[in-house]
Amino acid sequence: MIPIVSFVGWSDSGKTTYLERLIPELTGRGYRVCAVKHDVHGFEIDTPGKDSWRLKRAGAAVSVVSSPAKIAVIAETDHDLTLSEIRARFISDVDLIVSEGFKKDVQPKIEVFRKGIRDALLCTAADMLIAVAADCPVQTDVRVIDLDDVASMADFIEKAILKG
Amino acid sequence: MIPIVSFVGWSDSGKTTYLERLIPELTGRGYRVCAVKHDVHGFEIDTPGKDSWRLKRAGAAVSVVSSPAKIAVIAETDHDLTLSEIRARFISDVDLIVSEGFKKDVQPKIEVFRKGIRDALLCTAADMLIAVAADCPVQTDVRVIDLDDVASMADFIEKAILKG
Repeated sequence: MIPIVSFVGWSDSGKTTYLERLIPELTGRGYRVCAVKHDVHGFEIDTPGKDSWRLKRAGAAVSVVSSPAKIAVIAETDHDLTLSEIRARFISDVDLIVSEGFKKDVQPKIEVFRKGIRDALLCTAADMLIAVAADCPVQTDVRVIDLDDVASMADFIEKAILKG
Repeated sequence: MIPIVSFVGWSDSGKTTYLERLIPELTGRGYRVCAVKHDVHGFEIDTPGKDSWRLKRAGAAVSVVSSPAKIAVIAETDHDLTLSEIRARFISDVDLIVSEGFKKDVQPKIEVFRKGIRDALLCTAADMLIAVAADCPVQTDVRVIDLDDVASMADFIEKAILKG
């Protein structure tokens, strides 16, 4: 089963920016990574007029475009899928799933915490918090890693999740 | 196993337009349909600057955006996936996969044939041709259905593929 770790944090804590630095550190170590972004507001990814959009509009529950180097799958869902459901239905051939958001999901979490946004962490141990990436001291029982030190975070993920 | 039928035909034979009429006929009968489009030239579906694009650019082999009503999965592939591989890795929870293109794939095929483009069909029986949707008489051993009669084509697909 492909392991999952969720990166959570208050709004504007820089989760995407953090993952933009962490993912190359992990891929540089030879891991294939899947990134999952939670978008509670919905999104528009397809381009009106394109064939895939036309087939979706015609009523296809799932629309796929496949090329020699890349495949895109857009599927209707009847509920907000959990990470475990997403993994089962759509993900294969990677070593690790890192997600952004999914605070309520039952998966190990790493909080990205930046000073000046809130006084305390978003997560508690009840949220399955396993580490914090922060640019300031943080009150917590779990491991705190400097926000700029993505190498140490990759070490931690290797030990705690990939080789755990 | 979810059945697959490929719609093939010469360029400009109107495959997408045909599927735009056939899919509502099938969904109207209660079937959930997945549409797969083959794009040999590659495509760009993600929007530069968006989080999913940033995570993909950072090196994620697979990038997912999930919302309560819809999920999008964009994955790198090391080869042009067959329909059977696409089905195994990405498709669930539908009754039928209709694809456009994939002429070389080993799946049952229906050719869309429009007069004035070419003199003869693109496919032969060796291509697993099972029917033709045409707007003119066609030399073939398989069933020919009028291009405008998508109800009869849906009947044919029900009998030959969905209840076969």
